[in-house]
Amino acid sequence: MAHSSKPKLLMIVPMKWAGLAGTALGSVEVVVAGKDSYEPADIHYVLSFRPPQGLLASLPNLKAAFSLGAGVDGFLSDPSYPKHVPLVRFVDRTLSAEMAQYVLMHVLIHHRMQRFFDDCQKDSNWRQRVLERRTEETHIGFLGLGEIGSYTAGLLVELGFPVRAWTRSRKAVPGVTSFAGPEEFKIFLGKTDILINLLALTRETVGILNASTFAALPQDAVVINVARGGHLIESDLLEALESGHLSGAVLDVFEQEPLQVESPLWRHPKVTVTPHIAAISQPAVVLAYVRDGIAAFERGEVPPTVVDVNAAY
Amino acid sequence: MAHSSKPKLLMIVPMKWAGLAGTALGSVEVVVAGKDSYEPADIHYVLSFRPPQGLLASLPNLKAAFSLGAGVDGFLSDPSYPKHVPLVRFVDRTLSAEMAQYVLMHVLIHHRMQRFFDDCQKDSNWRQRVLERRTEETHIGFLGLGEIGSYTAGLLVELGFPVRAWTRSRKAVPGVTSFAGPEEFKIFLGKTDILINLLALTRETVGILNASTFAALPQDAVVINVARGGHLIESDLLEALESGHLSGAVLDVFEQEPLQVESPLWRHPKVTVTPHIAAISQPAVVLAYVRDGIAAFERGEVPPTVVDVNAAY
Repeated sequence: MAHSSKPKLLMIVPMKWAGLAGTALGSVEVVVAGKDSYEPADIHYVLSFRPPQGLLASLPNLKAAFSLGAGVDGFLSDPSYPKHVPLVRFVDRTLSAEMAQYVLMHVLIHHRMQRFFDDCQKDSNWRQRVLERRTEETHIGFLGLGEIGSYTAGLLVELGFPVRAWTRSRKAVPGVTSFAGPEEFKIFLGKTDILINLLALTRETVGILNASTFAALPQDAVVINVARGGHLIESDLLEALESGHLSGAVLDVFEQEPLQVESPLWRHPKVTVTPHIAAISQPAVVLAYVRDGIAAFERGEVPPTVVDVNAAY
Repeated sequence: MAHSSKPKLLMIVPMKWAGLAGTALGSVEVVVAGKDSYEPADIHYVLSFRPPQGLLASLPNLKAAFSLGAGVDGFLSDPSYPKHVPLVRFVDRTLSAEMAQYVLMHVLIHHRMQRFFDDCQKDSNWRQRVLERRTEETHIGFLGLGEIGSYTAGLLVELGFPVRAWTRSRKAVPGVTSFAGPEEFKIFLGKTDILINLLALTRETVGILNASTFAALPQDAVVINVARGGHLIESDLLEALESGHLSGAVLDVFEQEPLQVESPLWRHPKVTVTPHIAAISQPAVVLAYVRDGIAAFERGEVPPTVVDVNAAY
């Protein structure tokens, strides 16, 4: 096989994406895992969401890795990830907007008791129940406040909700009360009526949605998890719902995806399950991000969304 | 009965409101219809949502009438309404915010296909369906663009939706494409995927949500009515849903409220029915508005939300 001088990208992606590569990636030579054969030494770039463990370490000339999503835990959970290889995450206005829409919708479904009115409709029952909690008394709390979180928080502030966020270091976002570090975690939770998890999955945040976290939330709180399944201890959530302490949960991500048919989450009356659709990367937009990112590296530059691999973010 | 020199307010309101009046209305003397007896000549002010026809005309010393809501059609549908009496409507940031929440929530429930995912959840079915229409291709159209409409439109613009509005005279709201007058009505409708009715109910707008309006909307459009039941021809809506031209409707207001148990709207799979709860005036806030409004009139001033009775609003 003749070696070309073009940069070579290994795509480890769903098959429907592979077809788009030819048109969208211009001067980049594309190899599709599971379809094309390749020499490990020929691969300069990788695009994936969760590459098989050990694969990246086996590519001696890898210049950079691109994540299909905003999260990079699918790469960094591989202990053999080659730490000298820059890792780039996909940050996109469309993705932020979709995530914001999802969060806003589910905050409002709970706040406006839409499920209650749905049930009334099934019984042709006209019941003019007023809001249980006024908007200005319904505290929305964000775990994590990056690009997506700040944008979503801003919209909720505009809708009249008091908004707070808990992050590693203190953040200054207009209208959002900032809590930082482990010592302020429980204070943050103590007044959070609707908790939205947008954290990256790291050693520090794995299992953060657990019994002790739920117990620190006020009575009747709601939990919305749109980050990673690994953040949530599912059995702790079920217990907190059963005990009546939490009044609801909205889950878009799960430890195991697809969520197993036998999971009690599917049929729990207080749980909304969606199949990891809160924000779906659009192939054309992702491919443009990869094309531009590779061009940057080839020019000796670094794309703006490169991750600090050693901070294990 | 001794006549006091205090201004006297006749409240024609649900009984639960009457109890609050004593504390909140200070120097105003309150008479509650259906509970207290009164001399028509003693009444200076009225607070109501829909006073009995002819009642206001029978009050010779009426100085002003206050509506419990943002709409005043409950007053102006009375042909004997005394046109020299200023009519004041309730415009309130809380009411606008509640209405915006309701509209946003239902726009998102349709746009994000939440009902589809709810159905999948019932079957423990993990189906990662992507959006049928991208946000930037989903045109939201407002009928009416007053205080509530502009506020809601602004939030939808921020969420990435293209927004348009149809009004009597052209409006300049940032990010909103303006259509005005009868000649631009069908052009406006032609590209409106989600139609939101926020019009006041007048001679010109009664029955505006009819077969000809629905036919001018694109295939699979959704109609959200949060204004008045009188805007909608319910049988035309049912036909447009049955034919498959419209894909859904969200109705918070009805010609007859409560909606009759036998109405087919309750059980229609494409219709969401809520019991006139999109925005509920809060008693304490309404009473403050009435107190301040009466004080203004007593000083010889006019509150800012007085209605042009002769323009029939």
